[in-house]
Amino acid sequence: MIYVAILGYGVVGSGIWQVLAQNRTYIERKASQPIEVKRVLDTRKFPGNPVEKVLTSDYADILKDKDIQIIAEAIGGLEPAYSYVKQALLANKHVCTSNKELVIKHGAELLALAKERGLNFMFEASVGGGIPIVRPMNLSLTTDEVIGVAGILNGTTNYILTQMSMVNKNFEEALAEAQERGYAEKNPTADVEGYDSCRKLAILLSLAIGRQVNYEAIHTEGITALTQEDFAFATHFGYVIKLMADGRITSMGIEALTVPMLIHSSHPLSMVADVFNGVLVQARMTDSVMFFGRGAGKLPTASAVVSDIVDISKHLDQHIEHIWSTESAMLLPLSSYRRQKMIRVSFNDRERAMSLIQEYMEPASIVEISEYSGQLAWLSQCEPENKTIEKLARLAESKVFIGEPRILRIFEPTKSDE
Amino acid sequence: MIYVAILGYGVVGSGIWQVLAQNRTYIERKASQPIEVKRVLDTRKFPGNPVEKVLTSDYADILKDKDIQIIAEAIGGLEPAYSYVKQALLANKHVCTSNKELVIKHGAELLALAKERGLNFMFEASVGGGIPIVRPMNLSLTTDEVIGVAGILNGTTNYILTQMSMVNKNFEEALAEAQERGYAEKNPTADVEGYDSCRKLAILLSLAIGRQVNYEAIHTEGITALTQEDFAFATHFGYVIKLMADGRITSMGIEALTVPMLIHSSHPLSMVADVFNGVLVQARMTDSVMFFGRGAGKLPTASAVVSDIVDISKHLDQHIEHIWSTESAMLLPLSSYRRQKMIRVSFNDRERAMSLIQEYMEPASIVEISEYSGQLAWLSQCEPENKTIEKLARLAESKVFIGEPRILRIFEPTKSDE
Repeated sequence: MIYVAILGYGVVGSGIWQVLAQNRTYIERKASQPIEVKRVLDTRKFPGNPVEKVLTSDYADILKDKDIQIIAEAIGGLEPAYSYVKQALLANKHVCTSNKELVIKHGAELLALAKERGLNFMFEASVGGGIPIVRPMNLSLTTDEVIGVAGILNGTTNYILTQMSMVNKNFEEALAEAQERGYAEKNPTADVEGYDSCRKLAILLSLAIGRQVNYEAIHTEGITALTQEDFAFATHFGYVIKLMADGRITSMGIEALTVPMLIHSSHPLSMVADVFNGVLVQARMTDSVMFFGRGAGKLPTASAVVSDIVDISKHLDQHIEHIWSTESAMLLPLSSYRRQKMIRVSFNDRERAMSLIQEYMEPASIVEISEYSGQLAWLSQCEPENKTIEKLARLAESKVFIGEPRILRIFEPTKSDE
Repeated sequence: MIYVAILGYGVVGSGIWQVLAQNRTYIERKASQPIEVKRVLDTRKFPGNPVEKVLTSDYADILKDKDIQIIAEAIGGLEPAYSYVKQALLANKHVCTSNKELVIKHGAELLALAKERGLNFMFEASVGGGIPIVRPMNLSLTTDEVIGVAGILNGTTNYILTQMSMVNKNFEEALAEAQERGYAEKNPTADVEGYDSCRKLAILLSLAIGRQVNYEAIHTEGITALTQEDFAFATHFGYVIKLMADGRITSMGIEALTVPMLIHSSHPLSMVADVFNGVLVQARMTDSVMFFGRGAGKLPTASAVVSDIVDISKHLDQHIEHIWSTESAMLLPLSSYRRQKMIRVSFNDRERAMSLIQEYMEPASIVEISEYSGQLAWLSQCEPENKTIEKLARLAESKVFIGEPRILRIFEPTKSDE
């Protein structure tokens, strides 16, 4: 019998409880022994709920309990989660978590502490919810040279963008619908501003390179400014718009950005709709591998935590190595990233605008859509950011254009010769 | 230092050699020690090739060598691969393999033998080439109740079907092109008749249910009979045609078939093109998870074998459990499988044909395509096979139809309430 404690009986915590109960036979067969929740930490009472009889509001009850070998942290956020996890490891308990803030901020340090003590610190559910991605990255793909990690890592924004693109809603309407369905929180900032995706990208990149990627250094833009015009012109060129987390590991260094991007409708990631997530990993020998699935939600996320619990139950005496040192990895400056872009401008003189764009930007074609007259859009060269900005600055001098140009980058998988 | 032997220096064997050499630093970091090929078994000579100095044609050289802890079997086929792997385990050596014939025929038995001796028998590369699928099935998804395993598991046929559908080639032309590019073998039977996909489906289903699925009991049809008409009518209804391996685990029992199927163009698996593979796993809590990547090819396949070597190098004293007993799993009879179908017929009396189809089959619509006049097609009800066959038999009595009706099943993910 393996005894587990769950910290926090919120969405994920109660999900872990439910998965362990409902899948008891599968889990016992897999772990070769029953897994039982001995304690659940929460300051709230849950009268009438079966969890009631194992509830405690005192963490010391769990730390002192010699029976408990594995702690599943499901409080979320940095504190008290970080202190609790550290104390758990110091009390010789294995830990698993779905907490991406904790993992990206303190993952390397907690892995080192776990290793030092022959324990495990696992976090499959911190990226991609129910999609097995952390374990494949750690076990299957890191024997190869990873050159790209990218994907749609946030279900809330993907739901909103799917609504905007399919049912022609504007951002506010789509957000309201997502909130109504429980896909978006009341305060949706972390999702819609891209912070959540950005942290998950930093975790995947850190695992790929074995060093710490500082998520605060990743250029991040949210989806709040996207308009129906963006979708209309993107569609015209054959693209959909997704909030992409885009990491490349090149011979020059590491690139990372989390921004709304155009992705061609022939690419499988363009099919990742609604609350689904999709991750693309590119490695030199293995080539492209993609993983799709539910990136959030109570049961998929909890299932991933339970897969960690089972994995730990089979490695109680052995640290499962993750190559992820506390050493910082520098990111290349955004100005050097070569991406093609869709650029859209409003003009006051159509003829001059056309000829200036032709002259300075040399696009293959310039597009107008009757519904959005007074605007032109084109696809830029695949060139560094600073080059595009420089060209656009020259264009702006003409006074033919109204307001700022709208720039949306285009996602391309990493080329293996880069 | 971990010493490895490779059995067979063909495509996969030489790939394993290359991956171990080229990714030496990544692998050493991951395995926490260098991994070195001490012996390669092959009866051929490879003059001038660096492998020359470790070549042997005598398997006893490897079995007797106490330094060698891991054997990578890359001979393929049943014999001598099976005898060699068994001897390796009996000589206390861990084994990994990419050999699907071996795995589906003897996997359960070899796993039991490995377990008994505290060794490992691993086979990540036997399904989906470079796609991490066996390990996720074993570590992440089997703590959940798997209700469906399906996918495009053969790159050769997928390349041929992509050519037939995109560039309008017929089967023979597309096969010739695939052979020219090295995607199809001179004798393409195992691929084009679906035998290869069928074995891989049997492996995935066996892993999902923990019992032995007899691949010979799986209803299997190849792609050789597909015509341009099939593609044209499928396109009309919004579908593409793929060779699908389709497994369902229902409360009634297990369904499995490997046949060309229509898959709706809004489903991500429809985007799996060329030599790529795609696998869909459905589990009750985790919901749908999909894995895409290169299902074959020297380096992707070899990378997967090397991921097994590294995994074994970290579990030299511990058997990694796979739940897969030698007990047989019965399949439900094909006649009971409920699938919607596209049915196409030729007629000698259009009016009577239309009215008979309306009366007996009750389709939502009946479609004609001007290029293929004299034919009608419709989508059937979602009903058991025997029901459709019964209705078609009644239709045939009318003598209005010429030849046999063409039936193509439509792929649908398993419904979770089934």
